[in-house]
Amino acid sequence: MAKEFTHEIKVYYEDTDSGGVVYYSNYLKYLERARTEMISTIGLSNNKLLEEYKTLIIVKSCNIEYLKSAKLEDKLQIYSSIESFNKASFVMIQNIKKNDNLIIKAKVKLVTVNKDGKPIKIPSVLKKQFIN
Amino acid sequence: MAKEFTHEIKVYYEDTDSGGVVYYSNYLKYLERARTEMISTIGLSNNKLLEEYKTLIIVKSCNIEYLKSAKLEDKLQIYSSIESFNKASFVMIQNIKKNDNLIIKAKVKLVTVNKDGKPIKIPSVLKKQFIN
Amino acid sequence: MAKEFTHEIKVYYEDTDSGGVVYYSNYLKYLERARTEMISTIGLSNNKLLEEYKTLIIVKSCNIEYLKSAKLEDKLQIYSSIESFNKASFVMIQNIKKNDNLIIKAKVKLVTVNKDGKPIKIPSVLKKQFIN
Amino acid sequence: MAKEFTHEIKVYYEDTDSGGVVYYSNYLKYLERARTEMISTIGLSNNKLLEEYKTLIIVKSCNIEYLKSAKLEDKLQIYSSIESFNKASFVMIQNIKKNDNLIIKAKVKLVTVNKDGKPIKIPSVLKKQFIN
Repeated sequence: MAKEFTHEIKVYYEDTDSGGVVYYSNYLKYLERARTEMISTIGLSNNKLLEEYKTLIIVKSCNIEYLKSAKLEDKLQIYSSIESFNKASFVMIQNIKKNDNLIIKAKVKLVTVNKDGKPIKIPSVLKKQFIN
Repeated sequence: MAKEFTHEIKVYYEDTDSGGVVYYSNYLKYLERARTEMISTIGLSNNKLLEEYKTLIIVKSCNIEYLKSAKLEDKLQIYSSIESFNKASFVMIQNIKKNDNLIIKAKVKLVTVNKDGKPIKIPSVLKKQFIN
Repeated sequence: MAKEFTHEIKVYYEDTDSGGVVYYSNYLKYLERARTEMISTIGLSNNKLLEEYKTLIIVKSCNIEYLKSAKLEDKLQIYSSIESFNKASFVMIQNIKKNDNLIIKAKVKLVTVNKDGKPIKIPSVLKKQFIN
Repeated sequence: MAKEFTHEIKVYYEDTDSGGVVYYSNYLKYLERARTEMISTIGLSNNKLLEEYKTLIIVKSCNIEYLKSAKLEDKLQIYSSIESFNKASFVMIQNIKKNDNLIIKAKVKLVTVNKDGKPIKIPSVLKKQFIN
């Protein structure tokens, strides 16, 4: 079974819009921060992946549902887990909660590519660490 | 049949990331700009919708596929059309092209709400104008 | 003498541009996050200031020098202190360091206003807490 | 005397914050768009500057004054001119107006550097075109 990683963020002015809530594209920033921190928990980073494994992780698709809104100075928890692996891609489930209420549901497909953008095998270090 | 609206944008430094391409969440900004300009073509605006029709349009879900990347100073065309209407929601297809190549495919579900966030009937002015 | 507050941030993809460094306007986001966290250390928040003190803090001017650049996954320390107070305004010095090297120097003038944007006296709770 | 260049932008949701106005760092994006379009009027671009002249233009300092605020769907005019040239740097005055009212005053110092970030002589094509 997949492990779940939690990352907490706080909503700043930069994230909000004149509707009084977090602007809809900014949740994708939160999701990406959470993925970066998840990679960081296993001693990796985007920089290391590129330098040592010649690998970039890029987003192939993102399916995001906006259930409730978040506001200035809210604290949000992002729960991330890997749903499935393929040779050169994997699917993540990323949910965002505010006070235990689910506000964002997202399914993100990621692909591992080389510097030229060609899909390459997922480094085994990633696979091993993220599956029990 | 639904009308199609075109909006062109240019990629500036602010839109790119250190991967050398447009950052994945910024395409959602482009999509929203295109929706705003589409509303503008029928003499409306987000401000007018709120003041005269007490209506806000919010994004309920966004399904976006990243087919190819865009780079600094690229010119991109965003093609937007309404796929279907419901009482208080509608679904849009929004595609982004670069030199006639499809680079982004998106399906966006929008809901019309009042100031308190409650779904309300789509103003008929919107429906009439966007369907042939 | 003024107290100094430290806030640490990490550079994510969202912050960088295709030049490979943090985009120049994003440092202003970091500065604002640091100011928000500084206010938070004295039990206040932008929300509380608005609700309890009917006060908004807005930026009147920003003088920022870019000495060195920051890159993806850098950890940056933001040092903030209040240089001087006036009736309805105060000046902050905010410096950003990376590995003990000064990379950004900023001087920010802030004004306290009411909901209509009129300057109002700085709440004494702010003044008391931020000066020794 | 220096020529003045005008660039118009429209304020979208992405630019605003929950205070109901354009977020303070986003004006720096507008300024950079205006500089890019100014360069474009003389047949150049950031890409061309890099490829043909091995030159990047980076911001060394920015002094910005916020006089009035801009709101959703405002149309803003950005007036840009070069105040002075040095060997490897130049100073620009960039003002933003809304309905003929000055809302933003900015003074931006820019430096021409090579790929390694070392200051290099401003390409003469830039100097010639931007001074009468």
